[in-house]
Amino acid sequence: MEAERKTFRDDKMKADLISRLKKVEGQVKGVSRMVDEDVYCDDIIHQISAVQAALDAVGKQVLEKHLRGCLVDRIQAGEIEVVDELLVTIKALLK
Amino acid sequence: MEAERKTFRDDKMKADLISRLKKVEGQVKGVSRMVDEDVYCDDIIHQISAVQAALDAVGKQVLEKHLRGCLVDRIQAGEIEVVDELLVTIKALLK
Amino acid sequence: MEAERKTFRDDKMKADLISRLKKVEGQVKGVSRMVDEDVYCDDIIHQISAVQAALDAVGKQVLEKHLRGCLVDRIQAGEIEVVDELLVTIKALLK
Amino acid sequence: MEAERKTFRDDKMKADLISRLKKVEGQVKGVSRMVDEDVYCDDIIHQISAVQAALDAVGKQVLEKHLRGCLVDRIQAGEIEVVDELLVTIKALLK
Repeated sequence: MEAERKTFRDDKMKADLISRLKKVEGQVKGVSRMVDEDVYCDDIIHQISAVQAALDAVGKQVLEKHLRGCLVDRIQAGEIEVVDELLVTIKALLK
Repeated sequence: MEAERKTFRDDKMKADLISRLKKVEGQVKGVSRMVDEDVYCDDIIHQISAVQAALDAVGKQVLEKHLRGCLVDRIQAGEIEVVDELLVTIKALLK
Repeated sequence: MEAERKTFRDDKMKADLISRLKKVEGQVKGVSRMVDEDVYCDDIIHQISAVQAALDAVGKQVLEKHLRGCLVDRIQAGEIEVVDELLVTIKALLK
Repeated sequence: MEAERKTFRDDKMKADLISRLKKVEGQVKGVSRMVDEDVYCDDIIHQISAVQAALDAVGKQVLEKHLRGCLVDRIQAGEIEVVDELLVTIKALLK
């Protein structure tokens, strides 16, 4: 059985990511409230765009850490299949 | 003073949007937990992609309602400036 | 038999769009040349990004003209099905 | 003076990329013709979407070759700065 792959993040990065995600969660709650209060569609769409931008920023931060950490380590260890995995990921992000 | 613009949504659409947004909220919480538990970056990025897709779907549903409802009504009422507003919105979504 | 739908563009807009598209064509030729001359991949990818940005700008200009012209005219003429068409188009652009 | 970085592509890949780019060039010419012949905006926008999809496919093919080739080679040679470069590229593609 293969051990589950892990990525260790230092406390600062963890805290930073979790605090950004808490903010995203609050924004999503805000959108629900806007729907409930009959806010004008166009304002809701702009708010959804803002949530997407915040989420994109989290995604890019995780990707950056992945490339600088896991990718480099695994290529240097000869685990070239990390590149197949990365291609799948980038295609998912570009969709 | 201009009255605040509103969009009335029927109960079914409201309930549907709010339930999708609740699901998105749960997914965002799930990403926080993954970060906290040192889950492998690549798995986190895929989960973030899934949240983005769910949020995109909500955005498209709101946009569809906006075009079929507000846009048609306002153009028929001669409020052509709704088109300027829509262009700003589409550009935000395409960013 | 339904007559083919047309969009009349004034000479200035036509000339402007065609000149931007000529530029895009030249940029695509440039990318071919880069491939042929073994230019470093990363530089080619950046050049492809630049072509995409130029093409996006053309697409947005055509969309803007479409919304301000055809969409308003057709909605005012009661041809509400233009909205279905627009939804398909926006989804294609957002893909 | 630093030597210019090159990427050697085999004849098959070169021919394939150049033939896709020729097709893109032809599609762009087609869009110019559509503008000139007053084709309906919505049809032009769909044709532009098709060109973008074709160009995206070329971009992904170049990126794949870049990751499998240059990236792996350079990381194995200890040139970790290739990751900074890749981050810039991915951000350009995600824009």
